[in-house]
Amino acid sequence: MAVYTEVNDDDLARFLVHYDVGTAMSCKGIAEGVENTNYLLHTQKGAFILTLYEKRVNRDDLPFFVELMEHLSSRGVTCPTPIRRRDGAVLGELAGRPAAMVSFLEGMWIRKPTVEHCGAVGRALAAMHNAVADFPGRRPNALSVAGWRKLYDQAQGRADSVLAGLDSAITEELAFHEAHWPQDLPVGTIHADLFPDNVFFLNGRLSGLIDFYFACTDIFAYDVAICLNAWCFEPDGSLNVTKARSLLTGYELARPLTSAEIGCLPVLARGAAMRFLLTRLYDWMTVPKGAPVVPKDPAEYLKKLRFHRGVRDASAYGLDLP
Amino acid sequence: MAVYTEVNDDDLARFLVHYDVGTAMSCKGIAEGVENTNYLLHTQKGAFILTLYEKRVNRDDLPFFVELMEHLSSRGVTCPTPIRRRDGAVLGELAGRPAAMVSFLEGMWIRKPTVEHCGAVGRALAAMHNAVADFPGRRPNALSVAGWRKLYDQAQGRADSVLAGLDSAITEELAFHEAHWPQDLPVGTIHADLFPDNVFFLNGRLSGLIDFYFACTDIFAYDVAICLNAWCFEPDGSLNVTKARSLLTGYELARPLTSAEIGCLPVLARGAAMRFLLTRLYDWMTVPKGAPVVPKDPAEYLKKLRFHRGVRDASAYGLDLP
Repeated sequence: MAVYTEVNDDDLARFLVHYDVGTAMSCKGIAEGVENTNYLLHTQKGAFILTLYEKRVNRDDLPFFVELMEHLSSRGVTCPTPIRRRDGAVLGELAGRPAAMVSFLEGMWIRKPTVEHCGAVGRALAAMHNAVADFPGRRPNALSVAGWRKLYDQAQGRADSVLAGLDSAITEELAFHEAHWPQDLPVGTIHADLFPDNVFFLNGRLSGLIDFYFACTDIFAYDVAICLNAWCFEPDGSLNVTKARSLLTGYELARPLTSAEIGCLPVLARGAAMRFLLTRLYDWMTVPKGAPVVPKDPAEYLKKLRFHRGVRDASAYGLDLP
Repeated sequence: MAVYTEVNDDDLARFLVHYDVGTAMSCKGIAEGVENTNYLLHTQKGAFILTLYEKRVNRDDLPFFVELMEHLSSRGVTCPTPIRRRDGAVLGELAGRPAAMVSFLEGMWIRKPTVEHCGAVGRALAAMHNAVADFPGRRPNALSVAGWRKLYDQAQGRADSVLAGLDSAITEELAFHEAHWPQDLPVGTIHADLFPDNVFFLNGRLSGLIDFYFACTDIFAYDVAICLNAWCFEPDGSLNVTKARSLLTGYELARPLTSAEIGCLPVLARGAAMRFLLTRLYDWMTVPKGAPVVPKDPAEYLKKLRFHRGVRDASAYGLDLP
């Protein structure tokens, strides 16, 4: 939520020469995106998001992200469309950073999603999973089970200072997932971060998905489990089973889950809660005092994790089991 | 340069009901404006800047600012035009803050102004001074000589910790200005903060003025003096007399300066340097550690102040004196 890198008028003019979008009419740094700097750019040809990739982003991953957005756009999944340079490249350089320009997507994200919003996001997620069938890109998920232990090692022994009992809860959970993580479920390119602020709605209809910078090759149903965590819990920490049912039913309209996927949903949801608990814990402990980005509270995800631990099967998420 | 207040989709929809602009298509917090929170809003009717007035702004002053922009727009001075509500009011309430909506002005601000930019800003400033002839609003300048001492009192004794010798320099300067500040020059509504980031250019032409939140009733030539300080010095601290001449010549094309105004330019420029030295010093000493807004270095304005102290008459700014 910050502008890390200033772009001046001269640099921008030089950057835009490589594109067929006309000249800049305005360029405003926007308070969106935690990892990168984003500008909302108006030119004679329309509105664009100009992203400068900051240090935490691996440059080698950038082609994967940009090509994924291009692929999804071409398959009818509404998302920002990368604008290629005149020489065909999708990445340029601006203010010393790798930079890319994508089409601007109108839409607002929903602070209090309803059952209908959850259904729409389920359908859109399944449509994305169908659309990547012929996407050739591969990117391992650095934030799956193997990555969790690394993340935790950097925090170990100090987690209890954030939340009492957290160290033992995480240790136990890590051992469980390392032993029980599903191995044979359908995989492909997943969004991996489809929280409400990454889904736009316009007049009550889903208008697009954004922020593919955690996208990776992983279990499709794990992406569903991330959404269950992100969309279907109430502010008091309880699961809204009507929302969960709506999300899953919406998903199955476009891509029916296999019985193996359904069977694994509880452990995947538990793992998804673990993943966000760990990254939030890490951010919580490492964010510099007074940084422009306020870290999110890890406690929310410990609560969700505990919920999923108590779940026996996917009927807890509103699915009608055979 | 920060979004202090979050606006959610529900609150925004309720706010927009009072306006004839359609519904929100997107709303991005932008990293602009030090005092207030600004959003770039797209609706079916176009682009707007939505400003939420934060605590440092006096609510009683808001009608003055908004009516001034409306007046200037109606007189052909390109600036954001306030959008009135259906009930005729220019101020609404959003997320617990007074809020106003103005037309979005395309344009980029110039990081390295040339002689031509300085000429254009001079002309635009004079056009503004002409356009306020029949503007009835009045607002005392809280940041003129009387205000400086109050500001300094809050910093007194600690200025030397920021810059050696600053305490005695300011004390001496305050006494000088309290004794010699011009009393009989033409007054009216001035912008009072027309720095490069408040002037937009499009394809080399000045496209508009923004940020009228320091506007007040004060000496016109003082506004010119502020611009001399803000536009005509080089990064090494030296005055570029060609830029100064261009700015003053541009100004005089639309509003010739009286001989009394010309005679007072050096003391007004010295006072303008003092005003920004003091507010920067104040911000420097009071900004919380790690705040999202990095304060500007006061030393720049001490240098400018010293330059103006050495000036004998307005020929130092490139004016041909009779």
